[in-house]
Amino acid sequence: MSDFQAPLRNIRFTLFDVFHADQMWAANATLSEVADRSTADAMLEEAAKVTEQVVAPINRSGDEEGVVWNEGKVTTPAGFKEAYSTYCEGGWPGITGNPEFGGFGMPKALGAQIDEMLYASNSAFALYPNLSAGASLAIEAHASEALKAVYLPKMYAGEWTGSMCLTEPHAGSDLGTIRTKAEPLDGGVYAITGTKIFITGGEHDLASNIVHLVLARLPGAPKGPKGISLFVVPKINVDEQGALLESNTVSCGSIEHKMGIKGSATCVMNFDEAKGYIVGEPNKGLMYMFTMMNYERLSIGIQGLGCGEMSLQSAVAYAKERRQGRAPTGAVEPETYADTLLVHADVRRMLLTMKSLTEAGRALSTYVAIQLDTAKYADQPEEKGRAVEMVALLTPIAKAFLTDMGLDVTVLGQQVFGGHGYIREWGQEQLVRDVRIAQIYEGTNGIQAHDLLGRKVTFNRGENVKLVAQEIEAFVADIKSQGLDPYCQALMVGVTNLVALTDELVARIDENPNELGAAAMEYLHYFGYIMYGYMWLKMAVVAEQKIIGDDGFYQSKLDTMKFYFDRVFPRTSGLYETIRAGFDSMDVNVDWL
Amino acid sequence: MSDFQAPLRNIRFTLFDVFHADQMWAANATLSEVADRSTADAMLEEAAKVTEQVVAPINRSGDEEGVVWNEGKVTTPAGFKEAYSTYCEGGWPGITGNPEFGGFGMPKALGAQIDEMLYASNSAFALYPNLSAGASLAIEAHASEALKAVYLPKMYAGEWTGSMCLTEPHAGSDLGTIRTKAEPLDGGVYAITGTKIFITGGEHDLASNIVHLVLARLPGAPKGPKGISLFVVPKINVDEQGALLESNTVSCGSIEHKMGIKGSATCVMNFDEAKGYIVGEPNKGLMYMFTMMNYERLSIGIQGLGCGEMSLQSAVAYAKERRQGRAPTGAVEPETYADTLLVHADVRRMLLTMKSLTEAGRALSTYVAIQLDTAKYADQPEEKGRAVEMVALLTPIAKAFLTDMGLDVTVLGQQVFGGHGYIREWGQEQLVRDVRIAQIYEGTNGIQAHDLLGRKVTFNRGENVKLVAQEIEAFVADIKSQGLDPYCQALMVGVTNLVALTDELVARIDENPNELGAAAMEYLHYFGYIMYGYMWLKMAVVAEQKIIGDDGFYQSKLDTMKFYFDRVFPRTSGLYETIRAGFDSMDVNVDWL
Repeated sequence: MSDFQAPLRNIRFTLFDVFHADQMWAANATLSEVADRSTADAMLEEAAKVTEQVVAPINRSGDEEGVVWNEGKVTTPAGFKEAYSTYCEGGWPGITGNPEFGGFGMPKALGAQIDEMLYASNSAFALYPNLSAGASLAIEAHASEALKAVYLPKMYAGEWTGSMCLTEPHAGSDLGTIRTKAEPLDGGVYAITGTKIFITGGEHDLASNIVHLVLARLPGAPKGPKGISLFVVPKINVDEQGALLESNTVSCGSIEHKMGIKGSATCVMNFDEAKGYIVGEPNKGLMYMFTMMNYERLSIGIQGLGCGEMSLQSAVAYAKERRQGRAPTGAVEPETYADTLLVHADVRRMLLTMKSLTEAGRALSTYVAIQLDTAKYADQPEEKGRAVEMVALLTPIAKAFLTDMGLDVTVLGQQVFGGHGYIREWGQEQLVRDVRIAQIYEGTNGIQAHDLLGRKVTFNRGENVKLVAQEIEAFVADIKSQGLDPYCQALMVGVTNLVALTDELVARIDENPNELGAAAMEYLHYFGYIMYGYMWLKMAVVAEQKIIGDDGFYQSKLDTMKFYFDRVFPRTSGLYETIRAGFDSMDVNVDWL
Repeated sequence: MSDFQAPLRNIRFTLFDVFHADQMWAANATLSEVADRSTADAMLEEAAKVTEQVVAPINRSGDEEGVVWNEGKVTTPAGFKEAYSTYCEGGWPGITGNPEFGGFGMPKALGAQIDEMLYASNSAFALYPNLSAGASLAIEAHASEALKAVYLPKMYAGEWTGSMCLTEPHAGSDLGTIRTKAEPLDGGVYAITGTKIFITGGEHDLASNIVHLVLARLPGAPKGPKGISLFVVPKINVDEQGALLESNTVSCGSIEHKMGIKGSATCVMNFDEAKGYIVGEPNKGLMYMFTMMNYERLSIGIQGLGCGEMSLQSAVAYAKERRQGRAPTGAVEPETYADTLLVHADVRRMLLTMKSLTEAGRALSTYVAIQLDTAKYADQPEEKGRAVEMVALLTPIAKAFLTDMGLDVTVLGQQVFGGHGYIREWGQEQLVRDVRIAQIYEGTNGIQAHDLLGRKVTFNRGENVKLVAQEIEAFVADIKSQGLDPYCQALMVGVTNLVALTDELVARIDENPNELGAAAMEYLHYFGYIMYGYMWLKMAVVAEQKIIGDDGFYQSKLDTMKFYFDRVFPRTSGLYETIRAGFDSMDVNVDWL
């Protein structure tokens, strides 16, 4: 397979030319202290190096070898330990962490680019630091100062990693039914007892300690989601200075054998009166989880993007090398036995589809990351409030749409390789297997769709959809380019229909709550294609401005934008009809399914 | 995972109620000799038994264990040898074989149902007999009587298997460039020298001999596809009575490590002046391959169907068992901790999408199989000629559309399982991995699309598309049911657009041959959805007739038909727009892909 090459030019184009992240940082009281263009550039280059040279080379071997469980110990594949150590030496685990506790305090807009490189180079490896980042985030946002002071510096340094212990055998999407118990002991300590499954990084050999964030019920807690609390449960107990003491009664019962991300340990974790420390207040555990889920869900969306980027890189390289058949208009290289795959329109269709989805995905993830930064750091309450709304609305789209497109893109990338795409040595099939989980974990994409159309859209009567619609409308109204006219028009038809669909669905759901689940997934996809169209117009406007003296890069943005609107965006037409069909066609006798 | 249950009621519904295959057999001079309803019923039941009880149980273990190569010998997974032997005792390898040489002479319409059960229960296992069937077909159609007499009885008995040696390292989709050589020796024997890759069942331990059908070039043969001849090359040389002699100089250099179908040996085969026997006339090898490819391509389409059927069965069973969340209209089973997945509209969406695609796929594969039987056995030349046209047109659709839908269906089936879908023990992820190859081998789906819009549609100026359009139009005109009216109308809009699109594309391709590749894949999908709509109306008409006294089976056909038209068929709208976009949006500088 091709070596991973960090798409730095595309990343810079997105981050700085399209979204002017550096200007946003400069204007912000907190971020201007830590982030500017040259720091960011240097970090992007360093991240490119470590992912290209250290993390990518153990991607395929890690898949072949997998993690191994032996009497509760989990061994990661050869090279993971050394790579993780190099990664931590670079300070990467703490890149967006709170500087008060040793983090770099970098904006998520930058962190998102590093996430992409990490997932693209090795998704299984990426999960260890990314789960830690999620756990640190929850601790940073909700735990006591004492807990933060003990745990965060070690976690930002990568010395300890984190895990999120939510799922139980009978409770996956439906966390309200979890049964793990927390009994209060003396001195603010709790005894945690229960079994958690599908715990990514629950046990491994990369770090000296693992910090489990565990959802559990206190005695007498209300039934359902409002009776769940959050606890920090270390693998090895620690004192107040963070020195390791005796082992806690936490054990890894087994690991799962999976379709992909085989270098990532997916553990069954048993807590047997393990010592735990409550995070924040009792019974608010699920709420706390949600505040950090926006970050985690974007991160998983970026897994879809990263795997797609890697698949695209390899497929383009293969299509340029592999010779098969002749151009339909006559041999392009008659001196060879055959032309390259690039002469075939069907191959271009696949590559351009991949490119149009991947680059729009990068733009959307960056856009959402900037909204997260605004929500966190904005000085003006109004700006902050708007960003909070946007994050809430766009996060399920970023998670589900980027991962659904990630599967489509990697399947296309595999197809470009023909038979070689099915063979392990070329690496394309691994990307399909690795990206597939991203549609499932961190809330299945069905759950994301439900969250979008239910909690995010219906609960506020579609007002926040209008917020997005107005933003797009204002942006499009400002475009003075005749060349972009047809695409502006196409997008505005889509936006108008989105608003109308939203109103229609809100009314329908009032009448029959089943209409929510019936429309949710297609609605999310419809919204996703609109957002990608918006992203492509944003990129196209910049490309038009920069096209003088272009080496081809900016023209390719305009070409890919056109391809997107001509050949991908029309999927909205079918979705529009399907969404309107409603629950009626699902109201069947399920015995005969 | 759930045990495989042969969908006999659905198979009988399709074969006899919808397509009246038994009436066609009774009216045909050849087929009436061998096939009738009761024989077919008995065979379907026996096939159900062997696939459920013998073949299915070694599906997952075969995936875990895989085939093993050791110094040229290939060992199949535990149980494959015994299962193959039981399978052969039942006479299944020769089910559609020529009775003159020991076959049962059964129609393909029946054979297609058995193929489905075989692929559904174990795709890797299914490939051994199915490749043999393809090789026998080529020998039966084109080899000398002497070769037939030696090889066919052994192959129909399953004592020997067959392989198709086409691909070479540099020649996959582009077979015209193959380099394997055939040097004439004395006595009508040829010395075959070359390397073939991706050879399914090229070497294994199931049978006492393997009959390789090898494409090679004779000295001085014309360059390109018109200089390729076909040879029978046995693994072990045989005398005229079929007794085994010394080994031939054929060896298996290695096997591929693949994403799926791990129990199937995919071999690199080396021919080192191996003894070969020409099939038919020199330089007609590719043409001979094409005559049997219609059968093989339908068979691979049925792999897509079979994997989808298995995924659907498991997903339905899981959704009925697994409890998560509550019905949005209030708890359905308040005495339990949660309702089953079936209460969620999004889960029903997935299951009904799977069902609507799977059952239409079964109908289409049966329809094409009947056309194959008509093309082969019809007494009237006109009927035969029409069937030949229909087979040519519909085969690429059956291969590509059934396998593309097969991936979509198995991905949905995996999604229904949530996290458990990603875990190997549940079997859902294996179906995704196993079905994925079906979009690639036997001519990639891109090649199928090219074949459809190029060789099949453009070459005869869309006349055969009109043949199909007229058939559908006549069928719809005959439907007198008001309940089916909206679906008839939707389908006829689609058919009218298909004919218009065809005319438009034929004209465009005349002007620029690149328009062919630019539209081919979406055109194939558009056509596929039309054919599935036609199939659903065919099923619905029968269901309406039988609905009195229904236990729910026929109502579920009507419900699923409605679901298909409401929620799947609208995809044609987006495809219609995309097809019309043309090559224009692919005419880009490929350096910047």
